[in-house]
Amino acid sequence: MKTYEYDQSAAWFQRAAKVIPCGVYGHFSPAPCVPITHYPFYTARAEGSKFWDVDGNEFIDYMCAYGPMILGYRNPIVDEAFQAQLKVADTSSTASPVMVELAEFMVDLIPVADWAFFAKNGADITNYAVTVARAATGRRKVIAVADEYHGSSPWMQEAGHHGVMDADHVDVIRVPWNDATALEQAFARHEGQVAAFIATPYHTPVFTDNALPAEGYWAQAEAVVRKNGAVLIVDDVRCGFRIDMGGSNEYFGFKPDLICFCKTIANGYPISALVGTDALRTDCAKVFHTGSFWFAAGCMAAALACMKEMKRIDAPKLTMEKGQKLVDGLVDIAKGHGYNLKVTGAPSMPYLRTTDDESLMFHQKLCGESTRRGAFFSSHHNWFLSCAHTDHDIQRTWDIFEDAFKAVLR
Amino acid sequence: MKTYEYDQSAAWFQRAAKVIPCGVYGHFSPAPCVPITHYPFYTARAEGSKFWDVDGNEFIDYMCAYGPMILGYRNPIVDEAFQAQLKVADTSSTASPVMVELAEFMVDLIPVADWAFFAKNGADITNYAVTVARAATGRRKVIAVADEYHGSSPWMQEAGHHGVMDADHVDVIRVPWNDATALEQAFARHEGQVAAFIATPYHTPVFTDNALPAEGYWAQAEAVVRKNGAVLIVDDVRCGFRIDMGGSNEYFGFKPDLICFCKTIANGYPISALVGTDALRTDCAKVFHTGSFWFAAGCMAAALACMKEMKRIDAPKLTMEKGQKLVDGLVDIAKGHGYNLKVTGAPSMPYLRTTDDESLMFHQKLCGESTRRGAFFSSHHNWFLSCAHTDHDIQRTWDIFEDAFKAVLR
Repeated sequence: MKTYEYDQSAAWFQRAAKVIPCGVYGHFSPAPCVPITHYPFYTARAEGSKFWDVDGNEFIDYMCAYGPMILGYRNPIVDEAFQAQLKVADTSSTASPVMVELAEFMVDLIPVADWAFFAKNGADITNYAVTVARAATGRRKVIAVADEYHGSSPWMQEAGHHGVMDADHVDVIRVPWNDATALEQAFARHEGQVAAFIATPYHTPVFTDNALPAEGYWAQAEAVVRKNGAVLIVDDVRCGFRIDMGGSNEYFGFKPDLICFCKTIANGYPISALVGTDALRTDCAKVFHTGSFWFAAGCMAAALACMKEMKRIDAPKLTMEKGQKLVDGLVDIAKGHGYNLKVTGAPSMPYLRTTDDESLMFHQKLCGESTRRGAFFSSHHNWFLSCAHTDHDIQRTWDIFEDAFKAVLR
Repeated sequence: MKTYEYDQSAAWFQRAAKVIPCGVYGHFSPAPCVPITHYPFYTARAEGSKFWDVDGNEFIDYMCAYGPMILGYRNPIVDEAFQAQLKVADTSSTASPVMVELAEFMVDLIPVADWAFFAKNGADITNYAVTVARAATGRRKVIAVADEYHGSSPWMQEAGHHGVMDADHVDVIRVPWNDATALEQAFARHEGQVAAFIATPYHTPVFTDNALPAEGYWAQAEAVVRKNGAVLIVDDVRCGFRIDMGGSNEYFGFKPDLICFCKTIANGYPISALVGTDALRTDCAKVFHTGSFWFAAGCMAAALACMKEMKRIDAPKLTMEKGQKLVDGLVDIAKGHGYNLKVTGAPSMPYLRTTDDESLMFHQKLCGESTRRGAFFSSHHNWFLSCAHTDHDIQRTWDIFEDAFKAVLR
């Protein structure tokens, strides 16, 4: 099987490194793409389940832009709604009616939601949720799960990151995932001081296995939060609409006070949403939070169309099935070579690891060799399935994986 | 002159109030639009210098979406660049080459800039600038100007806002505008603890007169910051490219370490940028900051086209001239009725106030009566001129203002 060259990616990256600190930053930084020579850095074109890099190499994309592309790139239904709105009004001096229709749709779709609020980034919404919780409780501290990610604001980052100081974490208490007793103890240690418990619906760390909620965990956790008069915030930025169209909490059987959505809601157009219960409506109304482009109507029209389409085709079920089929085949291929591929998390966004090598290096090589044969695999982050992935894509991915496995073993 | 009715705006707002806390939030909240019955709440269409609300009323728009629409709504040059990029790739799994071209263009355009970094909101960039300053200095405190706005993150908001706590402000020191001595004293009081001084290029508070830098202020302020080894951050989110294409600091003759851009850079498409000097490049590279849609290529193509076009036509000069012409006429009309209209700030984003009434109520009525005759005027916030405002628009605005004045005096 032909392996890709990345001369143009390298040339663009050299130019980038002169005018952008570290060339590409944040979660798109190529630094975690190991071996780095096996990955493309720049996209020339994207369509459906695939993208083509600046060297003309074709990739079946299992990162989906790190989550957003649930319906595949350039989905015509979402794009037409976006374009139709842009033809009349986008960023304007007042809001547009589509903002109301979008909020109405989300309130109808999501059992927990009595209202909706829109912004641009996931972190806009997780930060806002915490501020609303503080406003509602008059308390400051926040309990979060260790190694969980809620955006790149300093208070949410791990200690020791550059520019992040001890003072950023003074009000953040970290507890282990799936441990309701630890949660209860944290509340007891900081009695009357905790505004909120913020968590993803299941645990999605990087560089390590993901973990679904243990039997009974969410029921216990919810009870602990309620007993302590705090606000339960679900950060559904990554999982939202990949597990359940009503919010991932519905799948796991519990009711938060606030849910944060982003990534999938508009199939790649920049918008995020906070939904919540009536009990927090007044506090939300009183907390000031805004941004220059938050009322842009195009992204709202895209979100409305995207959510309608995800609901119509049952995108969570579809991506779960596609993901299960994909990983079952990959596990079999690994087994055929005498290796164990461990799959954790929801099948629509599976985390994979070759358990035979604790150093991750074997798995990194495997993902790298697959990528430079046309299956874009991250070795350190969960993958994402889209509704655009076809059986043909999956078969082709298995063939690539087989060939990549042989290359690594050679 | 016919005055507008807002039945459809009211109907949409009633629907909105059920599903969105306070109906419309943030800086688009209709609450400061006093008298509230004189303002539209929802845009149906926008083009050039105008928008039409959901009742079909036409407005010459002097808010320009609170800043972004420097070239006017639906500018064909920016829109074509945006559309051309969308046809190939927008939000993808890797960055796009246009990100490099955009950074190269900004480094070439802006004397202070050795590199550029992109995000979505103004606050993404002001927050990031402060984190980079903390990383570079190992210090935590930030000095800011009293009553100045740098985004809606709790640390930047005024104390007493709902959900904002004393702890949010513990590291923020506020000093009066145009007072280099106060700045020096603040540094002395917190010697060795101040990471940055963040300020807008000139003072743009709401509900009160704006103020240009006093003679020598920026030279003194810059010297004080340098002497104390802190980072000088200019928040050019609102003024950027409305005063000088090289950054507003060039107009006022000083050199910050970091400049924050947003609003105008892509004529309404959601993108913001931080530019900075080589001395801070490594710290910027090491500080982790990212967002789900920060690598969307469409907005970057729009920004590149918008900045090229602003440079080609000299948008700062053009909007300065249009603004000066507009306000000169308005001042004359007020004078004709025996009233004094005070104009402060840059003519491209003038702040107006009728000085004969300290309560602001007369001025509010005047802006309200103008708005419901077709000149969209905010009474509490600076206005914004665009390159799309025509002589005909300005003449029509004067006629409206004359009629509004008569209505208020009746």
